[in-house]
Amino acid sequence: MKPTPQLLNDILEEVRPLIGQGRVADYIPALKEVSANKLGVAVCYNDGEIITAGDADEPFSIQSISKVLSLTLALQNYSPEEIWQRVGKEPSGQAFNSMIQLEMEQGIPRNPFINAGALVVCDMLYSRQSAPRQRMLEFVRQLSGNDHICYDKVVATSEMDHSDRNAAIAYLMRAFGNFDNAVMPVLANYFHYCSLRMSCVDLAKTFNYLANKGLPLGAEKTIVSQTQSKQVNALLATCGLYDGAGEFAYRVGMPGKSGVGGGIVAIVPGEMSITVWSPELDQSGNSLAGTAVLELLAERIGRSIF
Amino acid sequence: MKPTPQLLNDILEEVRPLIGQGRVADYIPALKEVSANKLGVAVCYNDGEIITAGDADEPFSIQSISKVLSLTLALQNYSPEEIWQRVGKEPSGQAFNSMIQLEMEQGIPRNPFINAGALVVCDMLYSRQSAPRQRMLEFVRQLSGNDHICYDKVVATSEMDHSDRNAAIAYLMRAFGNFDNAVMPVLANYFHYCSLRMSCVDLAKTFNYLANKGLPLGAEKTIVSQTQSKQVNALLATCGLYDGAGEFAYRVGMPGKSGVGGGIVAIVPGEMSITVWSPELDQSGNSLAGTAVLELLAERIGRSIF
Amino acid sequence: MKPTPQLLNDILEEVRPLIGQGRVADYIPALKEVSANKLGVAVCYNDGEIITAGDADEPFSIQSISKVLSLTLALQNYSPEEIWQRVGKEPSGQAFNSMIQLEMEQGIPRNPFINAGALVVCDMLYSRQSAPRQRMLEFVRQLSGNDHICYDKVVATSEMDHSDRNAAIAYLMRAFGNFDNAVMPVLANYFHYCSLRMSCVDLAKTFNYLANKGLPLGAEKTIVSQTQSKQVNALLATCGLYDGAGEFAYRVGMPGKSGVGGGIVAIVPGEMSITVWSPELDQSGNSLAGTAVLELLAERIGRSIF
Amino acid sequence: MKPTPQLLNDILEEVRPLIGQGRVADYIPALKEVSANKLGVAVCYNDGEIITAGDADEPFSIQSISKVLSLTLALQNYSPEEIWQRVGKEPSGQAFNSMIQLEMEQGIPRNPFINAGALVVCDMLYSRQSAPRQRMLEFVRQLSGNDHICYDKVVATSEMDHSDRNAAIAYLMRAFGNFDNAVMPVLANYFHYCSLRMSCVDLAKTFNYLANKGLPLGAEKTIVSQTQSKQVNALLATCGLYDGAGEFAYRVGMPGKSGVGGGIVAIVPGEMSITVWSPELDQSGNSLAGTAVLELLAERIGRSIF
Repeated sequence: MKPTPQLLNDILEEVRPLIGQGRVADYIPALKEVSANKLGVAVCYNDGEIITAGDADEPFSIQSISKVLSLTLALQNYSPEEIWQRVGKEPSGQAFNSMIQLEMEQGIPRNPFINAGALVVCDMLYSRQSAPRQRMLEFVRQLSGNDHICYDKVVATSEMDHSDRNAAIAYLMRAFGNFDNAVMPVLANYFHYCSLRMSCVDLAKTFNYLANKGLPLGAEKTIVSQTQSKQVNALLATCGLYDGAGEFAYRVGMPGKSGVGGGIVAIVPGEMSITVWSPELDQSGNSLAGTAVLELLAERIGRSIF
Repeated sequence: MKPTPQLLNDILEEVRPLIGQGRVADYIPALKEVSANKLGVAVCYNDGEIITAGDADEPFSIQSISKVLSLTLALQNYSPEEIWQRVGKEPSGQAFNSMIQLEMEQGIPRNPFINAGALVVCDMLYSRQSAPRQRMLEFVRQLSGNDHICYDKVVATSEMDHSDRNAAIAYLMRAFGNFDNAVMPVLANYFHYCSLRMSCVDLAKTFNYLANKGLPLGAEKTIVSQTQSKQVNALLATCGLYDGAGEFAYRVGMPGKSGVGGGIVAIVPGEMSITVWSPELDQSGNSLAGTAVLELLAERIGRSIF
Repeated sequence: MKPTPQLLNDILEEVRPLIGQGRVADYIPALKEVSANKLGVAVCYNDGEIITAGDADEPFSIQSISKVLSLTLALQNYSPEEIWQRVGKEPSGQAFNSMIQLEMEQGIPRNPFINAGALVVCDMLYSRQSAPRQRMLEFVRQLSGNDHICYDKVVATSEMDHSDRNAAIAYLMRAFGNFDNAVMPVLANYFHYCSLRMSCVDLAKTFNYLANKGLPLGAEKTIVSQTQSKQVNALLATCGLYDGAGEFAYRVGMPGKSGVGGGIVAIVPGEMSITVWSPELDQSGNSLAGTAVLELLAERIGRSIF
Repeated sequence: MKPTPQLLNDILEEVRPLIGQGRVADYIPALKEVSANKLGVAVCYNDGEIITAGDADEPFSIQSISKVLSLTLALQNYSPEEIWQRVGKEPSGQAFNSMIQLEMEQGIPRNPFINAGALVVCDMLYSRQSAPRQRMLEFVRQLSGNDHICYDKVVATSEMDHSDRNAAIAYLMRAFGNFDNAVMPVLANYFHYCSLRMSCVDLAKTFNYLANKGLPLGAEKTIVSQTQSKQVNALLATCGLYDGAGEFAYRVGMPGKSGVGGGIVAIVPGEMSITVWSPELDQSGNSLAGTAVLELLAERIGRSIF
């Protein structure tokens, strides 16, 4: 069954009472100020049809969802061997920014979707791209068809002011020989990517290539191969939701990636990409109401990879 | 595309040169004696059609594959709440028998497919079943349609003689209040389940219910609900291959469960269940050639959940 | 300056207001029932003179203080090489019963005064002594000159009923090949040693050999060599007070060993052995008021090893 | 018995065959170039008498021995409460630069003699001293009476070039709110202190205040109180030799502090300070032959705190 705007609206209303049970990310002021009442969803079919409900057109801070974008760019710039010798493909089983695992595993991050792994990916992009921030901006503008997408400089600066733990992670990887560039400029890029402001619609469009064998919406050429597209989905399914990946697979049953801004992107391979947004987070750092929207949607339209 | 016996044979021959690169499990004598050259595959369609190649009819020690069976029995005897308050749904991110995580997480195992989690499940079955071993035997005989399936008493006894680490795990969970019965009889049951001797064909038939919304082969009633069937597949996808779950998802793209006997069961939801067998293991404890067979098969028939 | 009974009394009164700020061990009923108001101290000079104050003659459960006695017996039965290849000499830096360190260090306990280390020592005694419990009883009766010292069977049984964590520790060491005998009988011995009921006076006399180069009170022959006596004191100074060893050295400045029964034995090498008793424990599991008594006493009589 | 130059010479010759069994620190080029054959010892009595043997007058890189000096300066600038709320007093039980413990214990280093703890102390000095490096230089020149003591700029620079792990440690503490200043300038000071070049004689003189109740050689006023002097010795005894503190107490029986330059300072409270130097290190990072010299010396002159 195909979701209608009515179905999406019904689901949002059903889920809305959950607002108040989670907690908006507050580690930087810029995120804390977002209204907890925002709730939006956008579905983008592989044929380009878009169905939305709620605050689907309002841009928000995509945060860790950007980790999938930087990985995709790395896949374009590096061979698989080059990438996977520096970062693993396994779920982390620990809080997303823990250094214990990194220390025990000698500076090789578990996967590209925890902070350590994303920092390695950013370090790789820094080595081979001449203007990494500009390139990322072009990339998301092209994929989404929205030329107004911008970095939120206030957020990026604020993140940089609270970057001690990420600096520690990067320096530890440098100590293990798994970080090539100076730490601070790479961190600055990383936080810029995180600060991208995009709406549910922007994100659903942007990520449609993962639902369509690597082919972006309206494009004639894939940006990653069909195999790579499957592989990224596999990584999302096992590692995309911090230490809530198992629970998300159990409840929703789609590859997905969350950000502490409250967004979640989910993929139904071969059919559609979905984005939800609700700023309050659960204990694993994933959007609480957003997960519930996806769970209900998966159930109502009978879609799951399992 | 549907696999033919010829395709399966071709894949086995393509993979056979890998034999010699892994290592047969040798922690107990009974497993060590298995010939490293065994290689078999069986595909069971939801309509009951079976296609095989190689040593698909030869029984082997199913080992940890039994953890899916004990979870399924627990789902029949306990409410979800009862189960999931005692065992998690998240990938473990550490070696399958590590106690560090169990200690840090206060005796709640990460998921039902690591040893600690399976022991909790066995503890639950012990509390509510009157003859747990007999019940398990009836269960697999019924699902596979093979009344000759038996426990391998030599393996079960040998496991019990090398059970110190599992005993430590069980006692630690008891210390945290997450183990109700005496340790030794529960361990004895656990090792009996692991010692079940089944062939690729037996296993492909037995696990077909996970490919068919909870409905076993030739049955009229589901043994778990459609939702539970999806949930078990989700758990298999994130946690079914020890700390190689991410790599397996990346390469094969199907929910699966491995055992140190060299067997792997994989599910293509809605279509088929597959079992491969090759005794040599990779570094994560999963069948090395078996994984390669599944990878090639997934690619050739164009099946993946991603 | 030599302590007088008056000085000891003064110190006890000065410290008594601390009672109420700690917590009596309550993991087994038998320990929980002890009155929190007990407070005693006994000093035993190397010439045999004994000075006491408070409840110095009342027997209490010596608990982990027994670990020094079992190590001493092991030193009589094994070569240093045999002992120190199975247990280390380093402070543990973690809670006294943590399994994480034991797992990371492959079943070799950090030192003989954490539970794991004491269990290895008890395993060694079990292998070479024909009647370990009887031998321990004779040992403490002889050293203390008190033939009425007994095991507290209620405590020993109660400990055995709450022994899951220690069983887990022992089984884990067995899994690493560092535990030779059946776990339960060794545990039973270990808990018997812990259940010994001795008074401050008994303990001060018993441990005087560590203040007197290995020579017990009134004996003609040493029970350990002068070098071994120094070595045991060194181990006590670095490892004798769980993860409060550094704080104890900082405040008191004497080698010592505590037990969760509220007793602490301390040594002034060349001069005297001291025992204090107050059942309430601080956060590290050491007698709160007892430590304060030792701190004041060290200061008043100007004794410290530093 | 008082050591004579002859005794010191005899001990050096007895120990010299050990050279070749350890490993000179090689993590920076400047340290790697030191001749492995250097061997020296200096004893400084509290009355000022100095007895030496071997390369006792040759300056070497004092490295972590400087951590005792920075702690001493902190004791002059901060109240005990201010210091001990930011750094602990317990042995670390892990490799001297491990971040796991720091993460688990929320950014509070175990003690002031592991890198993390010394960095916190340097952070404190940076906050309250106007010219920390100049002040340290004046301090050691005054204590040793040697105005030629200098920083080794080559070593300091080289350390800074290999400072990723220490930077990671400092940033992690900052993330926990336990590091107040910018990381890099504090690191620069820390590495300067480590790069101090001093001889055995310089160090024995410098550290004599710890053998003499806080009173430096030839001074009229203590630099720390008698109590603080004891406390520092207590910390040295439990934490002064990385994760070899227990072994050092067991074999040598004196409070001590080692550096990866191959120096060890040891204290016989009330009598003398001793310094040995031999560049090859054992597995814990302590001078291999140097420890042996101290062990023999302790035995021959019958000195031990135990």
